[in-house]
Amino acid sequence: MIQAFNPRTGEPAGDPVAETSDVGVDALVSAATEAYPLLAGMSLGARAEALEAVADALDARVSELVAIADAETALGEERLTGEVGRTTGQLRLFAGVLRDGSYLDAVASPVAGAAPDLRRVNRPLGPVAVFAASNFPFAFSVAGGDTASALAAGCPVIVKAHENHPGTSDLTAQIVGEALASAGAPTGTFGLVHGVDAGLRLLRHPAVAAAGFTGSTAGGLALARICAEREVPIPFYGELGAVNPVVVLPGAAAARAAEIASGYAASLTLGAGQFCTNPGLLFVPADSALLAAVAEAVGGSAGGPMLSARIFAGYQDAVAEAEAHPGVTPLASGAQGEGPWGATPHVFQTSLKEFAADTGVLSRERFGPAGLVITYPSVEELLPVLGALAGNLVGAVHVDTGSPPDIALARQVIPALQRIAGRIVCNGWPTGVAVVAAQHHGGPWPATTVPAYTSVGTAAIRRWLVPVAYQNFPAELLPDVLREAGKADQP
Amino acid sequence: MIQAFNPRTGEPAGDPVAETSDVGVDALVSAATEAYPLLAGMSLGARAEALEAVADALDARVSELVAIADAETALGEERLTGEVGRTTGQLRLFAGVLRDGSYLDAVASPVAGAAPDLRRVNRPLGPVAVFAASNFPFAFSVAGGDTASALAAGCPVIVKAHENHPGTSDLTAQIVGEALASAGAPTGTFGLVHGVDAGLRLLRHPAVAAAGFTGSTAGGLALARICAEREVPIPFYGELGAVNPVVVLPGAAAARAAEIASGYAASLTLGAGQFCTNPGLLFVPADSALLAAVAEAVGGSAGGPMLSARIFAGYQDAVAEAEAHPGVTPLASGAQGEGPWGATPHVFQTSLKEFAADTGVLSRERFGPAGLVITYPSVEELLPVLGALAGNLVGAVHVDTGSPPDIALARQVIPALQRIAGRIVCNGWPTGVAVVAAQHHGGPWPATTVPAYTSVGTAAIRRWLVPVAYQNFPAELLPDVLREAGKADQP
Repeated sequence: MIQAFNPRTGEPAGDPVAETSDVGVDALVSAATEAYPLLAGMSLGARAEALEAVADALDARVSELVAIADAETALGEERLTGEVGRTTGQLRLFAGVLRDGSYLDAVASPVAGAAPDLRRVNRPLGPVAVFAASNFPFAFSVAGGDTASALAAGCPVIVKAHENHPGTSDLTAQIVGEALASAGAPTGTFGLVHGVDAGLRLLRHPAVAAAGFTGSTAGGLALARICAEREVPIPFYGELGAVNPVVVLPGAAAARAAEIASGYAASLTLGAGQFCTNPGLLFVPADSALLAAVAEAVGGSAGGPMLSARIFAGYQDAVAEAEAHPGVTPLASGAQGEGPWGATPHVFQTSLKEFAADTGVLSRERFGPAGLVITYPSVEELLPVLGALAGNLVGAVHVDTGSPPDIALARQVIPALQRIAGRIVCNGWPTGVAVVAAQHHGGPWPATTVPAYTSVGTAAIRRWLVPVAYQNFPAELLPDVLREAGKADQP
Repeated sequence: MIQAFNPRTGEPAGDPVAETSDVGVDALVSAATEAYPLLAGMSLGARAEALEAVADALDARVSELVAIADAETALGEERLTGEVGRTTGQLRLFAGVLRDGSYLDAVASPVAGAAPDLRRVNRPLGPVAVFAASNFPFAFSVAGGDTASALAAGCPVIVKAHENHPGTSDLTAQIVGEALASAGAPTGTFGLVHGVDAGLRLLRHPAVAAAGFTGSTAGGLALARICAEREVPIPFYGELGAVNPVVVLPGAAAARAAEIASGYAASLTLGAGQFCTNPGLLFVPADSALLAAVAEAVGGSAGGPMLSARIFAGYQDAVAEAEAHPGVTPLASGAQGEGPWGATPHVFQTSLKEFAADTGVLSRERFGPAGLVITYPSVEELLPVLGALAGNLVGAVHVDTGSPPDIALARQVIPALQRIAGRIVCNGWPTGVAVVAAQHHGGPWPATTVPAYTSVGTAAIRRWLVPVAYQNFPAELLPDVLREAGKADQP
């Protein structure tokens, strides 16, 4: 049985939920397999309407959803209400992607000389497994971005619920299932399983064609290995952890120390630091007033209840490891959060030299509101250290755009960040991921398992598609979208 | 040392070539690593000119290239001259892709409400390893499609030459290297290694960011595993073997038996059957006159010299395995090809029932001019057997388009082929792969290791790219192509 707990009290929240049996998992996959050609065959307009029906149904029950999610996650009514809106906004965004149709990448090559009539279009891969995240009970969970993009692509989805919010997951799944059915989506389009074993069985099932995951690096890499070792390997799109380095250039540090320090503290402690985009590493000039400002800002910050006893224990261990490190000194701590798993914000300090000499402890993710400030003597010395970092979802640079020396340094730092991060923020913070076409919420391994793809934004649909080319087809046998070869030849 | 042999005589062709040492491999990767930011930083126009310089230089020495390749492969002057043209055509095609620029997928999302200024563009992944094929000494070798597409993307390339044509590889590499240098490409943009050990060292090198491969299923899967097990796994784009099922519907079999049989024999024996697109499985109606026509056409066909003693031995083993299979009877054989490794075309016959009951021998690739004809009692019974096939590069269906029953059956067969093949040909044969934008030379695992990508056509460039998003950047720090946010919001 899976039992949720209220992070504010540590007491059980809601009734325990049964783990899905092997027979139950197999039945859902069978239903998804039967649904696949039917869902793929729905018109894009009908699939768009089904996504909108799900969005409308979730919006209609927002207070109920927020109440149960708040009891299971303690993320607060405001954040959770916003997250439901983000979730339904994503579903509607993908409805727009379907109506636009360009995601199909339909292309016809000119018939010229020896070249045959050749046309290509994207098709849905097949039934998809989605592993929900702990830290976003809506936007990266049952009806989150992976589900929305896969359903949009025409792939049936089976979600493995996160153990921390089974009640939220069940209510969301019920709403999603009813809305899809009412919109005419085939039976088996959507399913939900509970339990680690059920998730593993799902991932190993021969009929599952791909998987999406948002969560820890260790968990994601273990699941990625399972996918790679299947008899028929499948793509595993894991969005894992990251330390998201932020570089403050000398001009910016001098001009805006207080502003940068308060922005940093806010980003570091947002959601009790429980974001994969948390700014774990802050590189600041060695002789900067920024250190004192950061100490003051983080000293004045407050933590919050973490999502679970396990996440809190992991955070405590990570903080203890940093505290015990000989090359590190504590810079500041904030106020402890509420409840038995209330996190205390911490910021530690080290030198670039110590950081570079360390063999992996200091550059490790500390999931929660703990930051490491690294003082660098010069950008020249900083660059190889940045270049040696593992992959990240985000990098950021703070630059005084009015200062030619800062601009010149930024032109050195940005190429280094480009190679280790999927998104680069200028004069801002890694947290906050806009759901738009130009988003790339991805990054080099191990920030993600397949760095060419994003899990946020409209391009997320590409993960669930595969091209098929049709050669010398009579019009009556071509897929509808290829019948009128309107699109020009393009790469 | 690596020694080429003339397939027409079995005698050595040219002098032995030294295997590349560990130090030699590392030096090439170091040079490629230094070249990477410089090549990525070249303007698209300058990179296009470099590709065209390579194409011009290869064309200028076509007779020399063809002569040495013919001595090493016995593929013949006509085929090899055409293949050089295909190779230089590919290079020029990618020059056009660069000038067009849409492969960059540059996109800017509208700044509205809380949405930040966010822009995204594709960037080159890094140094790329390319494993050349035996059966295309030009188009899938040193200056072939993998090399052309990776250089176009801005990735330095190190090719592991195929053991069967070291002289061709060295001459091609010399021409490519000189042309790139003369066009201003950075030193280290291109390199060549010889030997299996050198190839493995290349694949395991931490600075290599991705690999392309064309070759056997067994070899490709072994290299794919190495890539997956690296400390930092890298994408391995393997284009492996396939059996490429061809379904002849009853109407087509009745209306065009002789034409289909002669087309089949030609496709089966083209290039001594040494194509990954060879039509290994032919499904024909049980009561059809096609069987006799196929027997006659293949009986009148001739084999050719195979590329190497090893490939010939593999073919002999595969033929012997089919001959020894109790469910299979020989249908026809053609004339043996020239030389010590001259292949004899063979066609075998079995029933759908025997084929379905077999546990993997009959559906195996037999690299060379050997085909299996499977007689099916009805399309209804055929469909589940098609659905159970592993992934293929190509599937084909022969249909009498004037016959409504054939059209109706095609509408059942095509969806089945769509799920097991990357390209579907109507009333044609799998061999022959047009180099155009709409091509998809890929297919479900294990036909390829990453089924979303093609190794032929302009979309092949996508394998060597990764997106980066830029948030809140001042214009002066943005990549040039993102400065003018001309492109509309799109998925």
